[in-house]
Amino acid sequence: MLTLYYAPHSCALATHLALEHAGAPYDLVRVDLANRQQRSHEYLKLNPKGRVPALVTPRGVLTETPALLQFVAQSWPQAKLAPLDDPFLLAEANAFASYLCSTVHVAHAHRMRGARWADDPGAWEAMQRKVPQSVGDAFALVEEGYLRGPYVLGDTLSAYDYYLLTLARWLEADGVDLTRLPRVVEHRRRMLELPLVQRVIAQEEGA
Amino acid sequence: MLTLYYAPHSCALATHLALEHAGAPYDLVRVDLANRQQRSHEYLKLNPKGRVPALVTPRGVLTETPALLQFVAQSWPQAKLAPLDDPFLLAEANAFASYLCSTVHVAHAHRMRGARWADDPGAWEAMQRKVPQSVGDAFALVEEGYLRGPYVLGDTLSAYDYYLLTLARWLEADGVDLTRLPRVVEHRRRMLELPLVQRVIAQEEGA
Repeated sequence: MLTLYYAPHSCALATHLALEHAGAPYDLVRVDLANRQQRSHEYLKLNPKGRVPALVTPRGVLTETPALLQFVAQSWPQAKLAPLDDPFLLAEANAFASYLCSTVHVAHAHRMRGARWADDPGAWEAMQRKVPQSVGDAFALVEEGYLRGPYVLGDTLSAYDYYLLTLARWLEADGVDLTRLPRVVEHRRRMLELPLVQRVIAQEEGA
Repeated sequence: MLTLYYAPHSCALATHLALEHAGAPYDLVRVDLANRQQRSHEYLKLNPKGRVPALVTPRGVLTETPALLQFVAQSWPQAKLAPLDDPFLLAEANAFASYLCSTVHVAHAHRMRGARWADDPGAWEAMQRKVPQSVGDAFALVEEGYLRGPYVLGDTLSAYDYYLLTLARWLEADGVDLTRLPRVVEHRRRMLELPLVQRVIAQEEGA
């Protein structure tokens, strides 16, 4: 049995969707970011990074969405969540995940998490002002090529579609000009129509 | 045949070391960051991200160090660069790489690349001031647990040791208090004694 520690509206959604797609057995534990539960002594013992997601497995705790997506894909290969049989295609998929994690998500984080990288509130405001451009620029590379269409990796839905959807849900709050990203927005619209996606989001964000 | 696009003192070193360890056949092309060659039309056609590393393969161009390390490990499995036969251990290794990429390297980048996240020179200075702390804090989690010892994954050298060494070479320039990180510094010292590491660094940084 697995336990996913998550928070609504966080990048944990990608792993949650992958677990659901795989038919994996898992429990959910919601972490209350508003009350900084992720920095509590108890949670830091579980995940010293003080972030979500964290996936508790019988062998230990796993973190980092790119690693989690491949772990779910390898643990439930019949779900075909990643191109596991081809190291080149898998590297392309992992490069996509790494880019979302280290560039797209990081650009987004400068809107709310400026204190990670500066102590000066004036600097936080300067970071916030740039988010519409920096997040838009980061998504532009997805728009122009990394999203092959109709799915991220081409003809087949994979875990990486769930990851892209997860971050694309933040575009409006980040102030990004959506007219720059018609293919990303269309991908998001199609993903949000999937019953599995609707069910998982309702579960995370419901009462 | 592979071609690695790299720059001295960049994170491309990790992939370079992994390729050398694997005995892979590869050519090297140095990208002149000082003259912004990575933003040239020619390079952007190769790698729209405008960064190094980029690995040109017969099937296409791969980027992102975490993806590249697993690709090299899977392409030359006899080199035993990653725990390929165990999805859980591989996920731990990939989580380590993802953390270096999205947290450690990103903290470091705020010293020289503030323009990615703000347009205000005052904000860049505020980011630079925080780098000794933010990079030190990011490495502290490696010090306190993710580096198992003597190697990152425990008893066996892997691609992830090359990645940690690569980023640990930036500690002094980032102003990090090394007394916080005795295990990381000792790991770096041992890695720098390896003939393979000395040869590759000399090749990258030599005349």
